[in-house]
Amino acid sequence: MAGFEHTTIVGVGLIGGSVGLALKARGLASEVVGVGHRESTLKKAQERGAVDRWTLDAAEGAAGADLVVLCTPVGLVADKAAEVLPAMKPGSILTDVASTKSALTERIEAVLPESVAFVPAHPMAGSEKRGIENARADLFEGARCILTPTARTPVEAVGVVCEIWRGVGAVVEKLDIAEHDRIVAQISHLPHVVASALVNSVKEALPYAATGFRDTTRIAGGDPGLWIDIFRDNRENVLATLGLFLREVREACDALENSDWDTLRGLLERARERRNKLDSPGSDGE
Amino acid sequence: MAGFEHTTIVGVGLIGGSVGLALKARGLASEVVGVGHRESTLKKAQERGAVDRWTLDAAEGAAGADLVVLCTPVGLVADKAAEVLPAMKPGSILTDVASTKSALTERIEAVLPESVAFVPAHPMAGSEKRGIENARADLFEGARCILTPTARTPVEAVGVVCEIWRGVGAVVEKLDIAEHDRIVAQISHLPHVVASALVNSVKEALPYAATGFRDTTRIAGGDPGLWIDIFRDNRENVLATLGLFLREVREACDALENSDWDTLRGLLERARERRNKLDSPGSDGE
Repeated sequence: MAGFEHTTIVGVGLIGGSVGLALKARGLASEVVGVGHRESTLKKAQERGAVDRWTLDAAEGAAGADLVVLCTPVGLVADKAAEVLPAMKPGSILTDVASTKSALTERIEAVLPESVAFVPAHPMAGSEKRGIENARADLFEGARCILTPTARTPVEAVGVVCEIWRGVGAVVEKLDIAEHDRIVAQISHLPHVVASALVNSVKEALPYAATGFRDTTRIAGGDPGLWIDIFRDNRENVLATLGLFLREVREACDALENSDWDTLRGLLERARERRNKLDSPGSDGE
Repeated sequence: MAGFEHTTIVGVGLIGGSVGLALKARGLASEVVGVGHRESTLKKAQERGAVDRWTLDAAEGAAGADLVVLCTPVGLVADKAAEVLPAMKPGSILTDVASTKSALTERIEAVLPESVAFVPAHPMAGSEKRGIENARADLFEGARCILTPTARTPVEAVGVVCEIWRGVGAVVEKLDIAEHDRIVAQISHLPHVVASALVNSVKEALPYAATGFRDTTRIAGGDPGLWIDIFRDNRENVLATLGLFLREVREACDALENSDWDTLRGLLERARERRNKLDSPGSDGE
């Protein structure tokens, strides 16, 4: 792999910090520079060995970098791209880790100079635990990382970003960018709406919640500000998948209403069979 | 506590087996007799020390017992009660562990002789892992156990069953029987319908499911036959809570449809706050 002398990570929280730790642990970058807006976080990232040095100025941090990885919350990615791109050197690569891709990529490509390549990427790892304190060098081990190159993405740059993610242990896959957004709407954004609605619909019974309810609603503990930006970016796909979900719930409701136990049993059996397939070997992060 | 020389457990799966192991481990029964319909399961229960002896004949197993605990799947509890009651001695106590209470209790009280007390109980412990192989002496440690005595339940019998559950580590609480069924509809039966609908509504994206989706849909792996009986018993409460849930989902849908981010943020914030309260100290079983 071409040597990445200098990698800059913008946003050193759970994902950005883990990228830094993983790159350093695997010897994939000789120097990692952290960019953030809070000194305390950046200092913690340096103490933990996720970055070698840091700056509060995104353009300064990106100057001279071979690779810039945008790891800020979704709502800030396009703005940060606009800040770093003018400072990036010819032949360098910009990439990101955002969980929505089409809307963001469009905004970034609108300000992308010819001399810099942008490779949209989405490592499916993370948790509702955020922040540099939870960063781990092995966060991406076995996790899926989806790349969604566009017509403007140079093949060589895709190859380089692919190698980096493989280097930190991820299973890399390329997907059509629209297809990616439909998929995450189904497996990540829909469950977030559903888990939140479930928590909100339970009233006096909440103190009685046990393991099952807690598992089912865990993701509702996520940061609302972060999620609003995700829903804004992927609104139409989320609405489409919510429509399918509502149809399934109504089918179950109708079966219950009519005491149609054969139909209800069929729905439960289909769900169990599909769910149990997910427990086969290999456990991705999210 | 009055000595339970002889306790009979009907159904020695996860819950029944754990009751046996817990009673023996705490010295709360000098003899535990297992009743089941499969020799192989009963032998395993004996090997594991959950029962001292066993029989395939429920009436024979219940004869002479001071306490009979019905631990079969919900759909079999009333039939097993009808089998054991005629054999039970005067002054003995019948209890159960079913997760629905009103319909079952009505059926049991219809065949209950004056000489035997019935105490409806629901230990909220368990998991989607079933069977005697998963039974544990500490399954009820810290779990909630709800007793739902009726007008016909003698106060002394309630006290005895309460002492037994406390003896095996559970936190015992009395609830009105109708209130119990409304509560479990919200925190257990509703999530099962929702998780199943979620799994069924996701199509080509399923292989991409990561931790969040897996947590949210784990309970959909439960046994459909068992669940059909639960839904049958608690149909009206489940329908009522499904109605509230659908209203919440529609509210989120409308907010998305109208790009009304303030409303959506409000829903997510409310859900996060309520969900995070559940992570405070103490973790019940289910």
